[in-house]
Amino acid sequence: MAKFLTNRDEDYAQWYNDLVIKADLAENSAVRGCMVIKPYGYAIWENIQAQLNKMFKATGHVNAYFPLFIPKSFFSREAAHVEGFAKECAVVTHYRLKNDESGKGIVVDPTAKLEEELIIRPTSETIIWNSYKNWIQSYRDLPILINQWANVVRWEMRTRLFLRTAEFLWQEGHTAHATREEAVEETERMINVYADFAENYMALPVIKGYKSENERFAGALDTFAIEALMQDGKALQAGTSHFLGQNFAKAFDVRFTDKAGKLDYVWATSWGLSTRMIGALIMAHSDNNGLVLPPRLAPLQVVIIPIYKTSEQLERISEKAKMIRSGIEKAGISVKYDDRENNKPGWKFADYELKGVPVRLAIGPRDLENQTIEVARRDTLEKETIPVNDVLTRLPVLLEEIQANIYKKALRFRSENTFYIDQWSEFLDILENKGGFIMAHWDGTKETEEKIKEESKATIRCIPFDAPKEKGKCIYSGKPSTRRVLFARSY
Amino acid sequence: MAKFLTNRDEDYAQWYNDLVIKADLAENSAVRGCMVIKPYGYAIWENIQAQLNKMFKATGHVNAYFPLFIPKSFFSREAAHVEGFAKECAVVTHYRLKNDESGKGIVVDPTAKLEEELIIRPTSETIIWNSYKNWIQSYRDLPILINQWANVVRWEMRTRLFLRTAEFLWQEGHTAHATREEAVEETERMINVYADFAENYMALPVIKGYKSENERFAGALDTFAIEALMQDGKALQAGTSHFLGQNFAKAFDVRFTDKAGKLDYVWATSWGLSTRMIGALIMAHSDNNGLVLPPRLAPLQVVIIPIYKTSEQLERISEKAKMIRSGIEKAGISVKYDDRENNKPGWKFADYELKGVPVRLAIGPRDLENQTIEVARRDTLEKETIPVNDVLTRLPVLLEEIQANIYKKALRFRSENTFYIDQWSEFLDILENKGGFIMAHWDGTKETEEKIKEESKATIRCIPFDAPKEKGKCIYSGKPSTRRVLFARSY
Repeated sequence: MAKFLTNRDEDYAQWYNDLVIKADLAENSAVRGCMVIKPYGYAIWENIQAQLNKMFKATGHVNAYFPLFIPKSFFSREAAHVEGFAKECAVVTHYRLKNDESGKGIVVDPTAKLEEELIIRPTSETIIWNSYKNWIQSYRDLPILINQWANVVRWEMRTRLFLRTAEFLWQEGHTAHATREEAVEETERMINVYADFAENYMALPVIKGYKSENERFAGALDTFAIEALMQDGKALQAGTSHFLGQNFAKAFDVRFTDKAGKLDYVWATSWGLSTRMIGALIMAHSDNNGLVLPPRLAPLQVVIIPIYKTSEQLERISEKAKMIRSGIEKAGISVKYDDRENNKPGWKFADYELKGVPVRLAIGPRDLENQTIEVARRDTLEKETIPVNDVLTRLPVLLEEIQANIYKKALRFRSENTFYIDQWSEFLDILENKGGFIMAHWDGTKETEEKIKEESKATIRCIPFDAPKEKGKCIYSGKPSTRRVLFARSY
Repeated sequence: MAKFLTNRDEDYAQWYNDLVIKADLAENSAVRGCMVIKPYGYAIWENIQAQLNKMFKATGHVNAYFPLFIPKSFFSREAAHVEGFAKECAVVTHYRLKNDESGKGIVVDPTAKLEEELIIRPTSETIIWNSYKNWIQSYRDLPILINQWANVVRWEMRTRLFLRTAEFLWQEGHTAHATREEAVEETERMINVYADFAENYMALPVIKGYKSENERFAGALDTFAIEALMQDGKALQAGTSHFLGQNFAKAFDVRFTDKAGKLDYVWATSWGLSTRMIGALIMAHSDNNGLVLPPRLAPLQVVIIPIYKTSEQLERISEKAKMIRSGIEKAGISVKYDDRENNKPGWKFADYELKGVPVRLAIGPRDLENQTIEVARRDTLEKETIPVNDVLTRLPVLLEEIQANIYKKALRFRSENTFYIDQWSEFLDILENKGGFIMAHWDGTKETEEKIKEESKATIRCIPFDAPKEKGKCIYSGKPSTRRVLFARSY
């Protein structure tokens, strides 16, 4: 299987596409820009959902569901939002089809034209704040801490599986608060939840920071993001949390009576994470043999493969393997025993490597005799033979070792590819020839930011929360700067 | 709270609407026919999803995700399907908006017209079979057992919260098989899964049967359904499973090589269950005090309410209540301690009755002294005072008792409202004055079925699987019949 993958070092983009297709994660559909998420890819998304749901619940949030359609006029209510979102959208104009009078197929019924066009949600701030208007009268109705799991549509012209698709799946949190402080605190809380999720589940080290004004969400006063480095040296934004101020409350006239009896507009946040994260997972960890999945999100954590020549051998191995499987299941680890007779062990080894299953166990006749089992880990491809009786104590530890090692490897890669640069020529050279994160001084102006983007294709990924104060000169304009910001080319 | 509900016996439709709104389950949105599912309603849906996911997994199914959009031409491929589905649909014709030249708001960009219109999926057979075409070559690729959780849109003119909305949430299973027998077996398996779910989780007795040709899914050779009786004497179809034969395989040219090396079309099924089930849950069990939720699907199973006058009393009660809560949580039962000081106990009692929480525990100063606790059950409104030390042994038993009792009550209601009728005048009389299920003979023709519908507004809900052979005369035409079928007016 894996031999069909393009070499990662020769053509990263093609390697990525090959991998998504051959590992059976997703494929393009008949509808331009829309993907089919296949069962194996969707199982990763379900694990992401389950974990985030736990974290959202632990921080007091509940789920709800708002309409797919947004009346066109809603977009015009918030000035920045309309600029950012109401452009490349899917527009519903009619609500009926009819048989073509020539008898050939069906056509849109011109009499069934909507009075006001409906937009397929690219994000749901407007329709949700239009509902919140009816839910909020007093400070007692606050905070509202709601999350929605949904599909959204942004009409992208150049699409790539998981990374950029016209329709994608995501969660979007939309919260309403009585005070600015509370809303800012929520915005921070959720970027921390995302960072926790990225680092401890995705095994993806991230840099938390503010977006520059140019890169902010349309309608936000502040956008916090987590940024991760992919193996080709490009950055990927892995989750954003927005402080929306009172912008949407003003646009939809959502006011409340505070404790003192005074009427004020409600404070808002929103935050989202999408199926794009599956793209990040692939690009951060995988190799020329296929996917490398962190055990905490892998749909299948352990596979057991029998090595045999005769059916009598298979029978004896199967008996032992099923006992082992049952023990592993009881320990809460997902496991499969693959005794399909159509495929040889070597083929299966390659297939589960391609699929990124963290641990492979193999048992042959010799193992039966010796009471041993072969344990292979996907991340390092190392093998060891251990006493079969140790497997239940070894596995949970090994899975955690793999989780930690994948993270450590990604962190080391990032350290090795983060550069503190003070010369413009060096800045360009690194972007062109190496890629990576560049920490450089910036004069804080939009103009400079745009020039840098124009000339280098790099953008300010974020202004890291933890960047120390440091006097310096802007990498581009030479004007004074007080701290470094994070530049990179990005997905 | 509950006093604001319309009386169920005076105006059932209004009672239902009041209840959905006041119990905070859902509300209408700014988009015609689309609802907002509020957190409490959505929590019921999440419990439905979790249970069905378990049952689907236990029967070998996996989840996946296919595009929201379907190219218009796909509908025309299957003749019956286009008649049934490609009519009242949301049609996307454009992919861009632009600023109005007059400076007022935004308008559809006429240059961004799609070459082929896209339909928002009303159901996904066509887009899914277009994908299956690429996944299936040999019998080794079969069966495919996929389920999808998704939103779908059918442009309904008259909508009601949960029961009939333009956008709704559902699951749709789409399976592909090598033989007719296997596909028929799958169709039966899934209607049995639905019936199991309805009876054992929704506490809803259902009748399983075939749909008449008129009532079949557009494109199916056979549709199996489960039918439930609501408290107003109307039927509600609670889930359907379709045997699609080779219709979609032929429409999308999906062929496979069988074991003998012969090329044949693939056999298909599809099956679905939607947020409509929340409507059924409400209408089957609830009363003038509010919702009655079966414990196995209730978002909150137990609430604890303190009865106190002084803050010193509250403090002592809270200490005890929190210990009890922690014990209940450990037993895997969902529980909340409501010590909000803004609302009196009486208000809280009414509110949790409105919300259908199965068990209410109350503790006052006297209980503290006597080491007792008051236990009230929502289904019968009965109260008892028990030793507080018994609460952890009593609760699991009580929740199961409530679950069983709600089912028994619904079953008794159905028995009392199922009529074996042989006279047309009596048939009409019952429908007009009582409602209920009518078991009557039918001559098996479309014409008669349509006449009956025209004159009585009743339809054949299903031909029950277990209806015994019985010679008789058609209730309408007097022609010979071999068994009774199930008639009712329906949602």
